[in-house]
Amino acid sequence: MKQSEMLIPTQKQDPTGAEAISHKMLIRAGYIRQVSAGTYAYLPLAYRVLEKIEKIIQSEMNKTGANEMLLPDIIPASFWKDSGRYDSYGPELFKLKNRHDTDFILGPTHEETVTELIKGTVNSYKKLPLNIYQIQSKYRDEDRPRYGLLRSREFLMLDAYSFSANDGDLDEIYKKMRTTFENIFNQIGLNYRGIIGDSGSMGGSDSMEFSAPAAVGEDTIVYSDDSDYAANLEMATDMFVNKKSHGEINDLELVDTPDIKNIKQVAKFFDVDSKQIIKSLLYIVDEKPVLVLLRGDQEANIAKIKRFFNAENVELATLSQVENYLGVKPGSVGPFNINAEISIVADEYVKSVVNGVAGSNENDKHYNGVNPERDLQNVHYGDFRTVKEGDISPDGSGVLQFTKGIEIGHIFKLGTRYSKVLGADILDENGRQQPVIMGCYGIGISRLLSAVSEQQADSNGLVWPKAIAPFDVHIIPTNLKKESQSELAQKINDGLEKAGFQVLIDDRKERAGVKFADSDLIGIPIRITVGKKADEGIVEVKIRKTGETVETRVDDLKNTIHILSKEI
Amino acid sequence: MKQSEMLIPTQKQDPTGAEAISHKMLIRAGYIRQVSAGTYAYLPLAYRVLEKIEKIIQSEMNKTGANEMLLPDIIPASFWKDSGRYDSYGPELFKLKNRHDTDFILGPTHEETVTELIKGTVNSYKKLPLNIYQIQSKYRDEDRPRYGLLRSREFLMLDAYSFSANDGDLDEIYKKMRTTFENIFNQIGLNYRGIIGDSGSMGGSDSMEFSAPAAVGEDTIVYSDDSDYAANLEMATDMFVNKKSHGEINDLELVDTPDIKNIKQVAKFFDVDSKQIIKSLLYIVDEKPVLVLLRGDQEANIAKIKRFFNAENVELATLSQVENYLGVKPGSVGPFNINAEISIVADEYVKSVVNGVAGSNENDKHYNGVNPERDLQNVHYGDFRTVKEGDISPDGSGVLQFTKGIEIGHIFKLGTRYSKVLGADILDENGRQQPVIMGCYGIGISRLLSAVSEQQADSNGLVWPKAIAPFDVHIIPTNLKKESQSELAQKINDGLEKAGFQVLIDDRKERAGVKFADSDLIGIPIRITVGKKADEGIVEVKIRKTGETVETRVDDLKNTIHILSKEI
Repeated sequence: MKQSEMLIPTQKQDPTGAEAISHKMLIRAGYIRQVSAGTYAYLPLAYRVLEKIEKIIQSEMNKTGANEMLLPDIIPASFWKDSGRYDSYGPELFKLKNRHDTDFILGPTHEETVTELIKGTVNSYKKLPLNIYQIQSKYRDEDRPRYGLLRSREFLMLDAYSFSANDGDLDEIYKKMRTTFENIFNQIGLNYRGIIGDSGSMGGSDSMEFSAPAAVGEDTIVYSDDSDYAANLEMATDMFVNKKSHGEINDLELVDTPDIKNIKQVAKFFDVDSKQIIKSLLYIVDEKPVLVLLRGDQEANIAKIKRFFNAENVELATLSQVENYLGVKPGSVGPFNINAEISIVADEYVKSVVNGVAGSNENDKHYNGVNPERDLQNVHYGDFRTVKEGDISPDGSGVLQFTKGIEIGHIFKLGTRYSKVLGADILDENGRQQPVIMGCYGIGISRLLSAVSEQQADSNGLVWPKAIAPFDVHIIPTNLKKESQSELAQKINDGLEKAGFQVLIDDRKERAGVKFADSDLIGIPIRITVGKKADEGIVEVKIRKTGETVETRVDDLKNTIHILSKEI
Repeated sequence: MKQSEMLIPTQKQDPTGAEAISHKMLIRAGYIRQVSAGTYAYLPLAYRVLEKIEKIIQSEMNKTGANEMLLPDIIPASFWKDSGRYDSYGPELFKLKNRHDTDFILGPTHEETVTELIKGTVNSYKKLPLNIYQIQSKYRDEDRPRYGLLRSREFLMLDAYSFSANDGDLDEIYKKMRTTFENIFNQIGLNYRGIIGDSGSMGGSDSMEFSAPAAVGEDTIVYSDDSDYAANLEMATDMFVNKKSHGEINDLELVDTPDIKNIKQVAKFFDVDSKQIIKSLLYIVDEKPVLVLLRGDQEANIAKIKRFFNAENVELATLSQVENYLGVKPGSVGPFNINAEISIVADEYVKSVVNGVAGSNENDKHYNGVNPERDLQNVHYGDFRTVKEGDISPDGSGVLQFTKGIEIGHIFKLGTRYSKVLGADILDENGRQQPVIMGCYGIGISRLLSAVSEQQADSNGLVWPKAIAPFDVHIIPTNLKKESQSELAQKINDGLEKAGFQVLIDDRKERAGVKFADSDLIGIPIRITVGKKADEGIVEVKIRKTGETVETRVDDLKNTIHILSKEI
């Protein structure tokens, strides 16, 4: 392909407002252009990368027997009203009306649509299991689009949906999809981790997230430095080690603590480590008050509270809610004399506090000598804490480390979350009507461009892994006016294309310096420079990733490229 | 591919409300399902057909050096306000707002978006010509969606846009696109015509439409029975033959014609053929009155009037507008004593009327003995008539015939219609700033499914041309319980797949009758039935299109299929 015939608007300057290296370089190298905040044009080079990613996905998905199809982007709002997500999904849902004033949404995901489709077409276990997928633009009205393709309003997704008559089949497809996703990410040449994920607004039980470590990642990934344990911060847990000391147990003592409000002040006042303090926080869980107890050095994990109560919404109580429910100011809240209507849950580490300090639930007073098993009633113990770096991995192997990651894929067991409410029933093996059992599986295709760029770009530009590079080889004739150079370059181009390589040839009338800089920006794995030694039949081959160069005789070139291609 | 693993929900009954055979059969054969009025799910079989069409398009477009890319579906309304189409496009434009109350539209076409892109990235003739294209969902809020994929609210399109610095380059690309589109339609195996089209709301000058003749077509195509002339009814013209008789010229005579209002009454009253009458119609052309004269036996062509005045809007005047502008009732309107502010245009056939009859512009009076060249002033003559079947083809070869057609593609020379108003300027060869010159080229991909089905389906179901069939071969083992049959079917499946054929095998536990009926519905070109003679190594091969069957030994099968594949 001739570079002069392609739209590749490279630029030297970083675009204004771009923070992420992937965003800067995809713009500078002429891969994307913003059309409006959060929407982008994928220019020809980016499109070639997208196409290669899509082919890898299609090939791997088809191997599993999954069916490709295509659903509309415009979805009747009634589907989402029936599932309950029309209201719960929030302001990220693009809503619109047609000319007859009927409500529609632009699909951010297609559980409802595909469930309605199956409801209308499949009614028996005999036609199951089925796994159907599509590659399609999705829409999310982000408040503040950011980082180029990473948080955008319109993006490309693979979304797959499985349907089965029993849990065993769901398990099998779920596992197959896990392996398929791993194969896809491996082929693309991406550094990623499979982590235990939160199923969030999708509903459902088991879920697993695939995350690409990168500085601009919006997720915090927790992983063990010595095992393959990895989880989202919201899901991460550590090993509970009961270090309860077996010393003397003191009596409970009520102490005046004027103006003592926070953990730091309590620790100083009582001259104890924060681990000796029991922190009491009032949360409003789906409109009901819940008192959550934590060891003073630990933080609550909202997602864990949410899951424990199977709640939609968990928020810290306001000052007036605290006073209203408990009759004290927040600084003195404690697990004593609590009205029976208020549930109390405590992190398991609270149980191992000996002779601790806790709020008394009377203003300006704390209890000292608190021993939870003796002193606290009606408390449910569990894991309600947010893990910290250095905590022991839950599998006992290694300690936890944090890193930032970009979510690139997600697999969920949805169960009957959607089929139940939308009435997608089938007859099972025993002739009983039951909701079909679903799973869903997604990959963020356009954000993979950002993830790969984020991991592999350098200060000179993009660096593409071979499998998804827009071209295999970039040919640069340095001086087109010299016929020997332009002819040799064209000859090499034709020979490599014939051998099955995808070749971009820089036939522009530009200075060599401009061509080299653009070539570095564009990031094709192998560059062939046809320069002064063209007359001698010698060209230079350069590996973009390593910067390594070799001079090669043109006769050996095809061979050299073959060998280098395998090495990259 | 195993039929049991695919979502192919065939049904015996025609869907309610479906009028077109393509609509009925695409539903019955399990290719599509309606999601809401005018939006459809493309199920796995339809998706395979779409994919094949897309590959043909991509391959042909890429050969011309066109660049594939992808623009957002959601377009800032400001682009369309700047081009003037935000208001003029009408209620078919889907409008929406984002959470910050900014106006957007869903793209029915992308001239504005791509012009803005080029404006921001290309500033010199040195980077031109460029031809970029995309394959994407488009949105049109049809008042009454109809005929399945033919008139739908969301549909797949190829849209290409060319940019050049001079008219010569535009001509060249336009010609290349015409040939490319012809290659595409030929490969698909479609019956189509290239016709002179109206550029309608797209703006621009030259345009050509590709139309697939079909009973449900919404366009009337006019063609010569003896040449390759073909045009939209709106654009069609016939040969003007001046048959002016050279007899005696009568004097003008004002005649009382009480209650004589229409052509029929006038003809009877004066005992003349309607060809002797000059019909006078008042139109409002972009808010200005225009008197249009036609021979009594001919009809006005609004599109021609529009083009002549380069107008946005042409409508027949209301009764009160006629009385207001002319001071008479419609029945007596004529080209006499007309206020100078009112333009008068006449079809060229009016000129050849000798001693004709026309309204006098006085109530209840007509003139007889009207000889236009003598009696009418300030009249501009031109082609303002609608052609009729039997008229002489404008190339003089043959007479005109009408047929119905489905618009499947369209190529336009846009010129500077968009670049001018959006300020997409480039420096030309002489260093002068000028608007970039554009062309646009579109194919309706999803409606091709309907067009092909409309032309080729029979009463048993769909019939796909080989190039876009979802599979090449359909294998039907009639009795799966007989191991010899199921094993042989599988062996044939594996052998054909290995030889590069795409094979669907009906592994469902259904009766043979059900399988055959479904197979006819689905319409794969070749069917292999593995039945009772499996033990003898004999199977039946059937051509879907002709119904022709042959018995073949399994050893000869691959060869038979190869030969038949070439024949189809």
